[in-house]
Amino acid sequence: MIKHALPVTREADFSAWYQAVIAEGDLAEESGVRGCMVIRPWGYGIWERIQRLLDDRIKATGHENCYFPLFIPLSYFEKEAEHVEGFAKEMAVVTHHRLVSDRKGGLVPDPEAKLEEPLVVRPTSETVIGSAFSRWVQSWRDLPVLINQWANVVRWEMRTRMFLRTSEFLWQEGHTAHATAQEAREETRKMLEVYRSFAEDCLALHVVAGEKPENERFPGAVETWSIEAMMADGKALQAGTSHFLGTNFASAQNIRFQNAEGQLELANTTSWGVSTRMIGGVIMVHGDDDGLRCPPKIAPWQVVIVPMLRDKPEDEAIVSYCRQLQADLASGSALGEPIRALLDLKPAKSTAKRWGWVKKGAPIIVEVGGRDVEGGNVSVVRRDSLYRDDGKLHAAILPRADFVGQAGSLLESIQHALYEQSTLALRSRIAPVEDWAAIQAMFGEDARNPGWADVAWSKPTGAELDSVVERLKALKLTIRNAPEGQTGHAGAACIFTGAPAVERVLIGRSY
Amino acid sequence: MIKHALPVTREADFSAWYQAVIAEGDLAEESGVRGCMVIRPWGYGIWERIQRLLDDRIKATGHENCYFPLFIPLSYFEKEAEHVEGFAKEMAVVTHHRLVSDRKGGLVPDPEAKLEEPLVVRPTSETVIGSAFSRWVQSWRDLPVLINQWANVVRWEMRTRMFLRTSEFLWQEGHTAHATAQEAREETRKMLEVYRSFAEDCLALHVVAGEKPENERFPGAVETWSIEAMMADGKALQAGTSHFLGTNFASAQNIRFQNAEGQLELANTTSWGVSTRMIGGVIMVHGDDDGLRCPPKIAPWQVVIVPMLRDKPEDEAIVSYCRQLQADLASGSALGEPIRALLDLKPAKSTAKRWGWVKKGAPIIVEVGGRDVEGGNVSVVRRDSLYRDDGKLHAAILPRADFVGQAGSLLESIQHALYEQSTLALRSRIAPVEDWAAIQAMFGEDARNPGWADVAWSKPTGAELDSVVERLKALKLTIRNAPEGQTGHAGAACIFTGAPAVERVLIGRSY
Repeated sequence: MIKHALPVTREADFSAWYQAVIAEGDLAEESGVRGCMVIRPWGYGIWERIQRLLDDRIKATGHENCYFPLFIPLSYFEKEAEHVEGFAKEMAVVTHHRLVSDRKGGLVPDPEAKLEEPLVVRPTSETVIGSAFSRWVQSWRDLPVLINQWANVVRWEMRTRMFLRTSEFLWQEGHTAHATAQEAREETRKMLEVYRSFAEDCLALHVVAGEKPENERFPGAVETWSIEAMMADGKALQAGTSHFLGTNFASAQNIRFQNAEGQLELANTTSWGVSTRMIGGVIMVHGDDDGLRCPPKIAPWQVVIVPMLRDKPEDEAIVSYCRQLQADLASGSALGEPIRALLDLKPAKSTAKRWGWVKKGAPIIVEVGGRDVEGGNVSVVRRDSLYRDDGKLHAAILPRADFVGQAGSLLESIQHALYEQSTLALRSRIAPVEDWAAIQAMFGEDARNPGWADVAWSKPTGAELDSVVERLKALKLTIRNAPEGQTGHAGAACIFTGAPAVERVLIGRSY
Repeated sequence: MIKHALPVTREADFSAWYQAVIAEGDLAEESGVRGCMVIRPWGYGIWERIQRLLDDRIKATGHENCYFPLFIPLSYFEKEAEHVEGFAKEMAVVTHHRLVSDRKGGLVPDPEAKLEEPLVVRPTSETVIGSAFSRWVQSWRDLPVLINQWANVVRWEMRTRMFLRTSEFLWQEGHTAHATAQEAREETRKMLEVYRSFAEDCLALHVVAGEKPENERFPGAVETWSIEAMMADGKALQAGTSHFLGTNFASAQNIRFQNAEGQLELANTTSWGVSTRMIGGVIMVHGDDDGLRCPPKIAPWQVVIVPMLRDKPEDEAIVSYCRQLQADLASGSALGEPIRALLDLKPAKSTAKRWGWVKKGAPIIVEVGGRDVEGGNVSVVRRDSLYRDDGKLHAAILPRADFVGQAGSLLESIQHALYEQSTLALRSRIAPVEDWAAIQAMFGEDARNPGWADVAWSKPTGAELDSVVERLKALKLTIRNAPEGQTGHAGAACIFTGAPAVERVLIGRSY
């Protein structure tokens, strides 16, 4: 039996395992500030890679980055009733702008410095960006406005879980304004597709893109679309959303333009975002009982070289051999970029370093000892296939030049393998379900890793929808989305209403 | 006489001119949220370039990026008395985490959701990062800790000015911990040098690096060093600071380590930062009466191609000619990177577009009309030398291939020319001054653009320093810094105390 690097397995306790990957992989930690985390260098390095790759795609589709204020006056929120209703319960509110001594050695907010109007720390920026759009948009010539911002946002959460749900998190939020509803709908779908293909190409996550049901819409949206990823425990993670906002926000924020005929019209707007939550998804899809397996495209370091030093004179030759190896690797390329190779010279034992990098999920770990130097070899561990059939660590001894020549394609093959595994895991855990009794059986108390049910849906609204939501809630289920590009509902009856189905939806538990 | 693109000149009203560059160059605008600005795409694009180039240098010196919480519990601040004293008067304080209806149609902070301990929106992160360091540092093997974060910070300002002083601003803050004071001092100076060379190489700003006097130190620092830039009106702008914090924060935050001999020691820490304020400096050094002149290294677009379209069938040939030009430019390189070339196809008149890009400061503007296409030419405007001797716009007609071949060196020559001008402006405006009467004359009421005085300084402390600060304050002056690597104080007497000088300092007005 293999003794894995983490103290707990997925099988034994998925939630404890998730925390262990984060702690042992130095991804993040509790900050001591309620609900906020510290993102450590390895975790933040992954986020920087996500930012770089996604930002390129956001810019390639014509969007420009801006920056809008962290603070939003309360009055901005009050203009869009559904929106404020959706966020009021989780807003951090700034009420004072100065501290004074409490005369007991401490400090308190200065009553003299109370703000006339409280400021909300942005939970999302539709209102403050809409207010800028109302200044920027006068004529049809000013449209479309296509902007994005990378920012921190705050939603006060009572129960937090690192990366998945924290009071402060990092994200990008795109906001656009268009002359017509059709163009705004196209933008909504275009950015959904950017997210889907980004998740697939860069995060190696096979996701399902589709429309959220009415009850799961973003507060104030006309349509909300999402990408949903399948976690290793069968739960869903909403990993990105794209909203068609119609004229709701334009009307609240007064975004009007003169059309080519000289008439005043309301603009149609969209918004879309992904966040550091994606890192939680990467962990719960690609992690194993030895820690994270980081897809090469988003790995801060793709190849980590660990010299096996023994505080002896030979060490010098080993380090110099490793430096050359690092330089050779860095001059090669993988997945369209130069290979990111690190030489780990920290003062620690090489075995501890190796397992440290296994837990962090570096795609390739190379060890070099005195014998390797003599023989012109390297010892290569591939993080996505760590063990041999006999349960021993799979370290392949390769001539250095061969390894350097293969490193790019090796990384590409790891990226590909992770994606294939994610595809298989998703496909094998979605099952068509024909009636409510089968749902109850599928998600019963004893069910382990039930995955998602694929059911026929008549798209009820109002009280009928409420009742469906209640029935699902009793089983801790939600409708994830109605996959785009689907067929196959024809002739089927909705498993909730019995009415003719208009589409199929996926149902599952979620984070 | 030249009719310039801005409605106001530097000479007529420098402050109004500064606002005009920002407004007309689409760099930023008032947000409607007190003290906070909206950074528009062109301004934010400059910040992204600054981030990319500086981040490379911060990483090349061994630092890793992390992310720490936006909110800092009040108790963290109270631990370092000088530090909290320095910031208490300008802190935004979060006191509630929920809003409720006020029963009059509005919302108010929910009294039931009052925080037990108020949270401060970070004005700087020494305290919260120090708290993480105290967890991370146990042994000498854990040192040095070298980290950086890119973040937004808030310092409540009563009088704000875009980029220079806003309640919220963007910056990077580096924080390091070391085993010895000497190593921490070296780090402080190393990062000062990173800032100096970055300002010189990337921003084309000749700056003076040196140590701030005691009264200008960062709250809680043992030494504060800065780079000071000379604005076109002769005022100084502190464009970056690097602090040696000694064991002050380590002691407050309990950052201790076991040294190689097994004894417990306090770490020595540093912090250093630059912010969006740098963009204000770039404007006030490189701007002219036609707007910004953006140094090519930080210009989001280095070459902007403006097709002269006339809504006629020939337009198609012009656009296709321009697309080829854009592609040819993008395959060339300048200043070590691919050339960033934009084809501006927005629906507007080409003259309006040309002047728009002049005001934004695009380094090279290329216009292409039907006649250029026929002749295989382009019309090239170099932003740093906009006019001919006769006052007309200097547009050079060049064969397309020649321009493509020269574009890289042209951009390099613009970068170089801006730097040379900044060097000259700095050098010509610093004057050695031998006594207080000369200072009074230099900075008298009628003085225009007085620059800085270079004076002998005995480094007084306590009440003696206070009195110097008061005398300077009456003339709205401050000591900027004591330039590093200086000689020339030997034998001189301090112009304030008459005591033998130990160094020379620069005195001036500042932003």
